[in-house]
Amino acid sequence: MAIDPQRNAWNRTALEASPFDALVCIAPSNVLLLSGYWPVTGNSLAILTRSGQCRIILPEDEQDLAEHSTNAEFQTYQPGTLDKITTPVEQFAGLLTQTIHSLGLERATIGLELCQTMQPASYASSSQYHGELLRCLRSRVPDCICVSADSFLATLQARRTPIELDILLSGVEIAKHGFAAAPKAIRVGSTEPSVAAAVSSAFQQAPQPESIQRSYGFFFCMSGPNSAKASAAYARTRTRTIETDDLVMVHANTCADGLWTDITRTYTAGEPTDRHHKMREAITAAREAALRSIRPGVPAAEVDRAARDVMQQHGYGHAFRHGTGHGVGLSAISANAQPRIHPASPDTLEEGMTFNVEPAAYFDGYGGMRHCDVVAVTATGAEVLTSF
Amino acid sequence: MAIDPQRNAWNRTALEASPFDALVCIAPSNVLLLSGYWPVTGNSLAILTRSGQCRIILPEDEQDLAEHSTNAEFQTYQPGTLDKITTPVEQFAGLLTQTIHSLGLERATIGLELCQTMQPASYASSSQYHGELLRCLRSRVPDCICVSADSFLATLQARRTPIELDILLSGVEIAKHGFAAAPKAIRVGSTEPSVAAAVSSAFQQAPQPESIQRSYGFFFCMSGPNSAKASAAYARTRTRTIETDDLVMVHANTCADGLWTDITRTYTAGEPTDRHHKMREAITAAREAALRSIRPGVPAAEVDRAARDVMQQHGYGHAFRHGTGHGVGLSAISANAQPRIHPASPDTLEEGMTFNVEPAAYFDGYGGMRHCDVVAVTATGAEVLTSF
Repeated sequence: MAIDPQRNAWNRTALEASPFDALVCIAPSNVLLLSGYWPVTGNSLAILTRSGQCRIILPEDEQDLAEHSTNAEFQTYQPGTLDKITTPVEQFAGLLTQTIHSLGLERATIGLELCQTMQPASYASSSQYHGELLRCLRSRVPDCICVSADSFLATLQARRTPIELDILLSGVEIAKHGFAAAPKAIRVGSTEPSVAAAVSSAFQQAPQPESIQRSYGFFFCMSGPNSAKASAAYARTRTRTIETDDLVMVHANTCADGLWTDITRTYTAGEPTDRHHKMREAITAAREAALRSIRPGVPAAEVDRAARDVMQQHGYGHAFRHGTGHGVGLSAISANAQPRIHPASPDTLEEGMTFNVEPAAYFDGYGGMRHCDVVAVTATGAEVLTSF
Repeated sequence: MAIDPQRNAWNRTALEASPFDALVCIAPSNVLLLSGYWPVTGNSLAILTRSGQCRIILPEDEQDLAEHSTNAEFQTYQPGTLDKITTPVEQFAGLLTQTIHSLGLERATIGLELCQTMQPASYASSSQYHGELLRCLRSRVPDCICVSADSFLATLQARRTPIELDILLSGVEIAKHGFAAAPKAIRVGSTEPSVAAAVSSAFQQAPQPESIQRSYGFFFCMSGPNSAKASAAYARTRTRTIETDDLVMVHANTCADGLWTDITRTYTAGEPTDRHHKMREAITAAREAALRSIRPGVPAAEVDRAARDVMQQHGYGHAFRHGTGHGVGLSAISANAQPRIHPASPDTLEEGMTFNVEPAAYFDGYGGMRHCDVVAVTATGAEVLTSF
């Protein structure tokens, strides 16, 4: 498949305005960003030069994935052999050095991942390089200057091209099948694991477009007082049995070929109580206020304020403990993914940005309600991608 | 819960014989190794001194997980606030510096994760620090000497204590429920995703012991010619429909509280053919030869040879493309996890080591058969943990 032309153009324009002669990335989400190919085990490199040349170095057993998703020039290495015990760096260091030389980058300023970031799970297990890629480059290409490209990459990750948006929407469509199973699974007497399993099971049995190569997801159920704990930076299914009048939250992060979703819906076991109605009214109004405020040029902090003001007017100011959202797409759950929809955000919305809008109210010992959608900034406003 | 006394003793004995005054780890599997607590988002630190003092620094929303799993002294930090946009390093750097000082480690030799390793997915998304923890320590505690503890940690990861083995077995028991659904799901006309979904769904609905806090798994189905592609370093479910006489492989990596399994079973759609019978006979005999060869003191390469010789005798020498196994437990799929059951392995088996035994035969364009068990080295031989 050809490289996404819009992504290519964005990457080149950004590089031209940057201090980097080239980028060398190994985190799967950044390899996807630069090349269109989403690595599995995290041992693939993408090199992109200021003049727009893109090269990939990857283990040979991922070649078919690269061929399917990019026309960038690539070279493969053997991830392992029966003759010796080896490591990915040993296997790719020679190719990396050759590529750097063939691109004339021996004395270049090279942008690398050097700082902490959140990386969505590309497989059951994937590589962490700690400082080893940096040390490899310094020893093999001693005259190149290695600098952090982390904030540069974070900005490039914020916007979706139309092609990336299509992939993200395919992922949402699969996730929708999962959530469709929730109302039936949630009843007094069922357990959190049984709800999570039912939703996840429906997700996994959903029809999957032929165009998608890899899709999987993480599903969680948190009920009653446990749903208040969902204000944490992560979700967790516990063993609790659902009781009458419980709030029951189902949270998912799913992906299709490296494009991630972040979706939460909150249900009630049985008929909603007055308190449930009041919470839902506030959250629905906060969501609508946030959505109305979204358009290119708007400070992300204003979107947060729009939602937060409504929550405050309904008496839920303190209960809305986290930011209204964060970038979603190449990132799944990072609060630092741009645009940060947060009171202190320095970000400004641009067309193509995708992020979540997740107004919520949490009461320790009672429960929490959150409605989390993924939205895209359009030319004139917001499109809710998770419209179910 | 108290720290596992056997693990504590092993860690201390190893540290006493090491060049390190202390270890500072942030990869979730190593935090688990040092403290008993398996972090979620990968932003928790474990510090273990040569004198056996263990300290944890973790985001406050993971406190209950730490309390449940360890009695190590811990301090928490706020992962985020509504006042400012921050990063984990900004939030924990002060606590880390204080802890280093309170332990008298200002001029110590500190072992860190500095090299490439495979890290099992602790959540949908988790932190990668690249070189940032190293830089944080160097700037905050400039007189300490930071050196790689990677090979030291890899060796410590190889053995299971009885408590760890129990957790691993709980995970196997859950996985067994998943595999039990495979024979019914596999039939001519069904698709790889439907088989993977059925198995995964049964896994997720399996009863889970109260003692386990987090369990999830990755399930894959590869049929016909796709099953030959399972010799790669990863598995992938494609859209293929199962045909008559197909080999159908189901592969899983599942975990219970950070202890991982690596399990593969191969089925046939309909009655096995003569070719299937011959392949199974060879693989069964190779598995038995490998199991018979396992006991403390045996070179890991001999276990590989035992299986490989049988495969060669059956005419499947070239078809058995990878090593006979690798460490499994704190690692899921790393070929470099000790003990490496590989022709060139320098490792020697010790009581308590856990690894997979995965004799296999792959024929491009036809299919592959693999039987992958997790085994533990006992005082006198091998115990198959995945005896289903």
